[in-house]
Amino acid sequence: MRNMEKIDQLEAWLDENRYLALREELENLDEVEISEIIDELPSAKALKIFRLLKKDQAAEVFAELEPGIQGKIIHEMTDRELEVILDEMFVDDLVDMLEELPASVVTRVLEITDEHTRGTINRFLKYPKDSAGSLMTSEYTSLKKDLRVEEAIAYLRSFGHDNETLYSCYVVADDRTLEGVVTLRTLLLASDEALVESLMDSEVVSVSTDLDQEHVADLFMKYDFMTIPVVDSENHLVGIVTVDDIIDVMREEDTEDFEKMAGTLPSDKPYLKTSVWELAKNRMGWLTILMISGVLTGNILAHFEHAFISIPLLVSFIPMLTDTGGNSGSQSSTLVIRGMVLNEIKFSDGLKVLWKEFQVSLMAGAFLALITYLRLIYSYPDKPMIVFVVALSIQATVIMAKLIGALLPFAAKLLRADPAIMAAPMITTIVDAGSLFVYFYLAHLILGI
Amino acid sequence: MRNMEKIDQLEAWLDENRYLALREELENLDEVEISEIIDELPSAKALKIFRLLKKDQAAEVFAELEPGIQGKIIHEMTDRELEVILDEMFVDDLVDMLEELPASVVTRVLEITDEHTRGTINRFLKYPKDSAGSLMTSEYTSLKKDLRVEEAIAYLRSFGHDNETLYSCYVVADDRTLEGVVTLRTLLLASDEALVESLMDSEVVSVSTDLDQEHVADLFMKYDFMTIPVVDSENHLVGIVTVDDIIDVMREEDTEDFEKMAGTLPSDKPYLKTSVWELAKNRMGWLTILMISGVLTGNILAHFEHAFISIPLLVSFIPMLTDTGGNSGSQSSTLVIRGMVLNEIKFSDGLKVLWKEFQVSLMAGAFLALITYLRLIYSYPDKPMIVFVVALSIQATVIMAKLIGALLPFAAKLLRADPAIMAAPMITTIVDAGSLFVYFYLAHLILGI
Repeated sequence: MRNMEKIDQLEAWLDENRYLALREELENLDEVEISEIIDELPSAKALKIFRLLKKDQAAEVFAELEPGIQGKIIHEMTDRELEVILDEMFVDDLVDMLEELPASVVTRVLEITDEHTRGTINRFLKYPKDSAGSLMTSEYTSLKKDLRVEEAIAYLRSFGHDNETLYSCYVVADDRTLEGVVTLRTLLLASDEALVESLMDSEVVSVSTDLDQEHVADLFMKYDFMTIPVVDSENHLVGIVTVDDIIDVMREEDTEDFEKMAGTLPSDKPYLKTSVWELAKNRMGWLTILMISGVLTGNILAHFEHAFISIPLLVSFIPMLTDTGGNSGSQSSTLVIRGMVLNEIKFSDGLKVLWKEFQVSLMAGAFLALITYLRLIYSYPDKPMIVFVVALSIQATVIMAKLIGALLPFAAKLLRADPAIMAAPMITTIVDAGSLFVYFYLAHLILGI
Repeated sequence: MRNMEKIDQLEAWLDENRYLALREELENLDEVEISEIIDELPSAKALKIFRLLKKDQAAEVFAELEPGIQGKIIHEMTDRELEVILDEMFVDDLVDMLEELPASVVTRVLEITDEHTRGTINRFLKYPKDSAGSLMTSEYTSLKKDLRVEEAIAYLRSFGHDNETLYSCYVVADDRTLEGVVTLRTLLLASDEALVESLMDSEVVSVSTDLDQEHVADLFMKYDFMTIPVVDSENHLVGIVTVDDIIDVMREEDTEDFEKMAGTLPSDKPYLKTSVWELAKNRMGWLTILMISGVLTGNILAHFEHAFISIPLLVSFIPMLTDTGGNSGSQSSTLVIRGMVLNEIKFSDGLKVLWKEFQVSLMAGAFLALITYLRLIYSYPDKPMIVFVVALSIQATVIMAKLIGALLPFAAKLLRADPAIMAAPMITTIVDAGSLFVYFYLAHLILGI
């Protein structure tokens, strides 16, 4: 809300050419606030605002912008202006940006950067998307193990300017083999004469460039790291991943899981920046598959047509029954899938989970069946057997739904598929078919139809 | 998997009293690995393993353990042993632990800690759960603004041992009013003679003790912070929140959202540590409410009984129709809810979202209706009007479901309720009723029944 008002005011000042007021206002804002404002403005105005920023502020704001607007700004900048901005950016932010920009802009950026940075960028662009390699930055801090603390600190003070973080210093051999890690804290708290070697922790947890970002995030979760070193196949240090990028990864991965579990293809872009056509496309796949799998429930109902022709009342309870089944099943599958993501549930826990869900389903099912019985026997006192069939079906459906809901994520794991995508959208359809079959089969047995 | 084997081996060694081998193996593991092993062991064995640890390792492992096992270990420890462990723990970890432990254990812990720590703990225990106050630690690093860099670094090197982080140094006045922040990096890279005041950033983003942890996490996301200062109502610095705790908060909040959206009360404990009774209890509420709301769909179906008595085929398509509606609706509500959590969708975006969903629903609905028409006209070539009714109902249902799915989260916000809990579980039931009504009403209009 406050942001909206600020944007309106800035736009008004722009229209009135009140640049002095604008410049003053911009100096009071931080880079995140300015980038949010620029992202919201139409691109012509966004460019004008950007040009009003001071040099150092401009570079910081630029790194925060959405790729679309970054591309437009690059297009408008002179080579000299662009060089200043690129110089200030860390390699990981630069690579993230280049991955999103059209080829022509990428070429221009690569032409302007110096040879060394160009080499680094090109190497980084080759790492698979969502790997530790594509996430890392090459501006890490490294030390040699034979330095004394005093020398190490002096070294950091003279040469640390370009590093993304000074907090974790990685100790490397002459061929850049990773030998250990020492935090700046440890260095500072040690005596000047101590050797880096005696302070470093040589059991470094590192990741290889091709490790999936989800697993990198798991390590950050487990060890409360600020950074993690990335090594190539020969254990040479090639970069570091920092915790701020991991926070984004975690949110991204969780968002993807939400999307998948709702039967939507995951999208990289925020909702409001995604086109209608893309939103529709991402959703139609699962909607179509699930709708067509409705053939199954249709066939079951067609098969039992004689049952509801003779007792039409049976139809009234179909949605309640299938919904209760669907809800019960997705409770179980959601908890199991989430437990797997958080590494709280392992594949070997399958039987334990199944047994737990079975007990839960007995309890919850019995409770729901009782409520159903009491509610329906009051409404239909003259049809006790039908009421009994409905209540019994509720109990059976809940048991079935919870077992299937618990089993599907494990089945997905067994097939090396993603439980979120395999198990969550399927559950309703499978449980629907099961519950309808149980319902009419029990009606057939008990009511003799 | 590897962990399981390691645990089996350690248990075997325990049974055979091979303490030397055990001790050696434990020295090769880090504190996270050991704590994971101890958490998995039966408590008698867990205690034995814990006692085999070296003093400094024991304190680190202890901080990582589950509260249940922490309580048991405290129970077995002498006062002296406990004192050593407590001394090593940061106040935030200590408070987290005390919040989970039974009162008798808390009393014992408070008796053993020194007066100052006891005062801090008692103050921390008073902050509301899930607030910045309950999340923060009091071991922050502070400086005075009139120090020169050389003095500041010397000060940190002498007195920084007990601080959870040295990375962000907060500049405070004599009355502890927060005046600025300077990173250790900035200090190190500056010249010895510079004044802290000239280096510090005086526009510090801080939070008050009672701010909800979700909003604290949002600030970390937005600004890529490592720490954030927590102030009281008079802007006195009282603590800091560190990024490692924020990562846990984010995962926790996302997990809660998954649970709520699946119609389950959120649980603090991992799935496998939650009792069957608690799991059942957490799930029965929504299951019952949603099942009873099936009265609505039941009544609609009862109202249109004559329709499916005259055309029983109509019943076959009920589950396909309601499921397609439910799936379409939860796609929309999930995306909107997630967008709200990530601050990508604001309340003022309501109309934009609604218009977008309307267009998506036209597209997706038309596609699904077409497929339905083609599939059914092939199966039922002699019933074109019935097929037409079903296809038209699909289109209408998808539009309605997506609009309701987009609206519900905004309605929840308007009522100051949590969209995840208000909108997600309700969507199926509401859309079911709507789609059945549309279906039979169209059948009534077009087929004249």
